[in-house]
Amino acid sequence: MKTINTKKLLKAAEKPSKDARRLHPFYKGKIEVVPKCRVRDFNDFAIWYSPGVASVCTDIYKNPELVYEYTNKWNTVAVISDGTRVLGLGDIGPEASMPVMEGKALLYKYLGGVDSFPICLGTKDQQEIINTVKILQPSLGGVNLEDISQPKCFPILQTLRKECNIPVWHDDQQGTALVTLAGLINALKVVNKKISKVKIALIGAGAANMCIARLIMYYGANPANMIIADIEGTLHKGRTEFKNVQPEKWSLCVETNPQGILGGIKEAMENADVVIALAAPGPGIIKKEWVKGMAKNAIVFACANPVPEIWPWEALEAGAAVVATGRSDFGNQVNNSLGFPGVFRGTLDARAKTITDNMCITAAQELASCIPDSKIKPNKILPTMDEWQLYPRVAAAVGVKAIKEKVADKKMTYDQFYDQAVKMIKRSRAITSNMMQKGLIKSSK
Amino acid sequence: MKTINTKKLLKAAEKPSKDARRLHPFYKGKIEVVPKCRVRDFNDFAIWYSPGVASVCTDIYKNPELVYEYTNKWNTVAVISDGTRVLGLGDIGPEASMPVMEGKALLYKYLGGVDSFPICLGTKDQQEIINTVKILQPSLGGVNLEDISQPKCFPILQTLRKECNIPVWHDDQQGTALVTLAGLINALKVVNKKISKVKIALIGAGAANMCIARLIMYYGANPANMIIADIEGTLHKGRTEFKNVQPEKWSLCVETNPQGILGGIKEAMENADVVIALAAPGPGIIKKEWVKGMAKNAIVFACANPVPEIWPWEALEAGAAVVATGRSDFGNQVNNSLGFPGVFRGTLDARAKTITDNMCITAAQELASCIPDSKIKPNKILPTMDEWQLYPRVAAAVGVKAIKEKVADKKMTYDQFYDQAVKMIKRSRAITSNMMQKGLIKSSK
Repeated sequence: MKTINTKKLLKAAEKPSKDARRLHPFYKGKIEVVPKCRVRDFNDFAIWYSPGVASVCTDIYKNPELVYEYTNKWNTVAVISDGTRVLGLGDIGPEASMPVMEGKALLYKYLGGVDSFPICLGTKDQQEIINTVKILQPSLGGVNLEDISQPKCFPILQTLRKECNIPVWHDDQQGTALVTLAGLINALKVVNKKISKVKIALIGAGAANMCIARLIMYYGANPANMIIADIEGTLHKGRTEFKNVQPEKWSLCVETNPQGILGGIKEAMENADVVIALAAPGPGIIKKEWVKGMAKNAIVFACANPVPEIWPWEALEAGAAVVATGRSDFGNQVNNSLGFPGVFRGTLDARAKTITDNMCITAAQELASCIPDSKIKPNKILPTMDEWQLYPRVAAAVGVKAIKEKVADKKMTYDQFYDQAVKMIKRSRAITSNMMQKGLIKSSK
Repeated sequence: MKTINTKKLLKAAEKPSKDARRLHPFYKGKIEVVPKCRVRDFNDFAIWYSPGVASVCTDIYKNPELVYEYTNKWNTVAVISDGTRVLGLGDIGPEASMPVMEGKALLYKYLGGVDSFPICLGTKDQQEIINTVKILQPSLGGVNLEDISQPKCFPILQTLRKECNIPVWHDDQQGTALVTLAGLINALKVVNKKISKVKIALIGAGAANMCIARLIMYYGANPANMIIADIEGTLHKGRTEFKNVQPEKWSLCVETNPQGILGGIKEAMENADVVIALAAPGPGIIKKEWVKGMAKNAIVFACANPVPEIWPWEALEAGAAVVATGRSDFGNQVNNSLGFPGVFRGTLDARAKTITDNMCITAAQELASCIPDSKIKPNKILPTMDEWQLYPRVAAAVGVKAIKEKVADKKMTYDQFYDQAVKMIKRSRAITSNMMQKGLIKSSK
């Protein structure tokens, strides 16, 4: 492992970039719209359009819930961004964010059978973003917010979750938190520690880590055992700069780090059982000796992209028992794509009006359980995308939980949710492979 | 023909309604989103999503026009409605309008190869509609406004055409006007009359007829030879109720009917060579004797749905030489679906920033010319949807005109536009038939 150096790894990451530059203009888009109803000849348009369509419009007018039966609203999730915090690229604007949002829509369909399209907004204004999403509701089954900068992403999500009658999800918050929690659940099994007892350091206080903090507290972590560090140092009651302007961050200053430990990453990590870093591309953001200063059998999540805050082999050499990163070329990839497709599959199939925190935790537990206890290993705490049964499993768990949470309009069993999800996901793949076979999706070197 | 009665015809229209009620819940949506890029295995996601995608995002950030090369923006048209004037059903709201807007998206793809999805807005407010469309621009190649009530539809279209950097089209105005003009061009050939000389009565002063009035004046009709009648009677300078509240209608009061002829439909039609009615479902809105009072070889467009203002055989018996309606079960159907798919195909392929009135007139001329002069007959003034070459022809004519109008970013010849349109439209059909063959679109009785 030691022979792998930064240069080599960065070089490996260049290949997808090169391919992306070549293949994006080749395909000129990653998704398209196609008919999903029969069109035998032009007479069928009398059913799908005027005059026949008037009858179903009238029916929906009398009973608005029928829009879920007569149109594709039930399976449609818009990926909405203002392009202000795209990947590690920052505020590159809505046009430049389009390739990411189209990619996300592709993942939604291929992995979750969800029809999704990108909506990149020509505004950065918090209130305009909120208004626009609310106005777009009638056509949509759900909303995936993406790559919206903080701190506005917090009130945007909070307001929309409260005021919309369709589920609204911010994947950089909830999605990352879900998958991280799933990884943490299995990592704790590896080292045989309990969430309620462990000392946890969170490095970075962006949208993701702040949501992770909330979700793991909700799951059972003790805030008194947690220390969060942002770029200015540890959060504590003295960080009053957040008091009036960032209530979400201020409440973490109050709830965590009761001893008021000062300092930075080093101090936050001292004697910690777990460190979860979503801070800045490394290496060297987290130093080897700081991992040495952690408790025995430490768990290290170093999730910055494209280069983790510390190389996995360095963390292991320093005594870590489990290491996870955001990269696909190491074991234990903490990958959002393991979460959102199944979550929305289940949410849409349950016709849930919202995605509760409990549904999110259930999704994390189900995702973790996709690896049986006997198969959990230090370098295998999370499944990968090609273990595709994880998606119907997460969907089914989320659907059942939605019913228990009394936010669902449909009643189905776990098996029914599972079967429907399998059917839809297999169909997505069949469409893709069929179009490739027929040359309707061109092949390229 | 006389044996056909209203009851029988209305009964015939019941069949598509019945089928619609049965088949809409069967398919649960008329369009879906599918991948249009290769997905061989999960490694391809490193190209389409993180980490590879970052490179093309960066490129677009540096050169925003590349969003047209790297994403599907170039081929995407949103069908946007607030549901305030849906078909003949009126203000049934955004949810109930969804089946129409999905149907329109289906037509866009099947007939024009354009990727389209419905956006039904949860607001009826003019300014909010304008703001929302402007905010949605970054992801879209164009906008098709649909079924928005008048008078607000006029300032909405006008403002958006002026202030957007993508083409914005209101199909109930421009689309209907285009196809009506195409029909009129050929009808005038049948009776050997000139647009500049004929006397024209327009019955109904909704969004469509007001745009028709404008377009045929722009094409050469003499406003001094035109009389428009709305539900209150003929428009003339005395109709000052429109002066401050509906400037579009007021200017028609000033420009047309210079003799100030008073009265209603009857008076407007006296000695007219052409009557274009888009008023209210008939029969009996236009009386047989009023057609008798028209000039020799009169042209009657009775386009209300589902029943024309006068039955075609009654108009013919009264001496009309050419009769057109909105129905597919008579000859000469004035059908919007003949226009918009080709117009947007050409507009998108030319990467035109707007759709000018001249492009609209060119589209009408090309559509009319799809029937060679030798084949034009009293009951064949317009092609039908199954004469599918009309779409690439309209696309090519519009594309070339966009270049001449200096609103296009791409330079291509008529033949190049035509070939590209043929390719894309054939591909849409191949996808549909292939999915039907493979059972990915289920069959139904």
